[in-house]
Amino acid sequence: MDGVLADVYAQFLEMHLKETGERIPEKSLLGVPEHIAFPLIEKHVRSKGFFRTVKVMPSAIPVLEELNRAYEVYIVSAAMEYPNSLLEKYEWLQEHFPFISWKQIILCGSKYPIHTDIMIDDHFKNLNVFQGNRSFLYTQPHNELADTGKHQRVRNWQDLADLLLA
Amino acid sequence: MDGVLADVYAQFLEMHLKETGERIPEKSLLGVPEHIAFPLIEKHVRSKGFFRTVKVMPSAIPVLEELNRAYEVYIVSAAMEYPNSLLEKYEWLQEHFPFISWKQIILCGSKYPIHTDIMIDDHFKNLNVFQGNRSFLYTQPHNELADTGKHQRVRNWQDLADLLLA
Repeated sequence: MDGVLADVYAQFLEMHLKETGERIPEKSLLGVPEHIAFPLIEKHVRSKGFFRTVKVMPSAIPVLEELNRAYEVYIVSAAMEYPNSLLEKYEWLQEHFPFISWKQIILCGSKYPIHTDIMIDDHFKNLNVFQGNRSFLYTQPHNELADTGKHQRVRNWQDLADLLLA
Repeated sequence: MDGVLADVYAQFLEMHLKETGERIPEKSLLGVPEHIAFPLIEKHVRSKGFFRTVKVMPSAIPVLEELNRAYEVYIVSAAMEYPNSLLEKYEWLQEHFPFISWKQIILCGSKYPIHTDIMIDDHFKNLNVFQGNRSFLYTQPHNELADTGKHQRVRNWQDLADLLLA
């Protein structure tokens, strides 16, 4: 979800601005881990409403709706470290992706025991232990400078549509 | 969780008694699906506190603590149909099984994409699509009369200790 369906960077930037009056320059985020780029991140992700009000990534809704017709889709989110996010994440999916049923949602700690054929993720820690066929690195500032290794980089949902719905 | 770690039958019986004054005879539960045995089940599982206050299955705590030393344990619960249960289930695990970290918890809709070597469950719908090596049917009244098929029946947590910790 975060960094793929949910535009958490927009939320981090906005909350940082609101709390400190300081606008973090976007180019300072490139290649920097999120917990270093956003010094208030732990407070912000634990604050009520963070996940419930995050913006949807551009084009995620129409592309995922198409993918959901063509594939067996699961939304897998490593949410368990932030237990107050669990209901917020469920409600956020219900609001923006009503075509995703509760049967397709998995909120976990580690993604390791969840086996699928394809994974789309922005974090190497999840992609590198994935055992399926195709792994896509969804571009986010923290991974933008990294060598993708065996994973295929996608810059946005349109890239995913081109690759998976062609 | 439900029917394996959590004694949901005790909770169903108590809530039915409290609401109707009627005590459901335990022998009437044998071989009967839960939603038929407990006509108020949908209301009760959706009521605040149902999962937070359910009793722990006898011996589940010490045996799971030992299993957690010997195996890579995941607690997988099909909770997503009842989104208000998500936080309650997390808090319940924290209270009774503090040795289980958030990294080991998976709250899902379908258990199908979660792959492990061993599964312990009380429902055939989960066990029958399981792709690992050993599947244990945890005895609950609804499955007590059923032929276990390829699964191995365990009556309680002591049985699991004998089979998995010997």
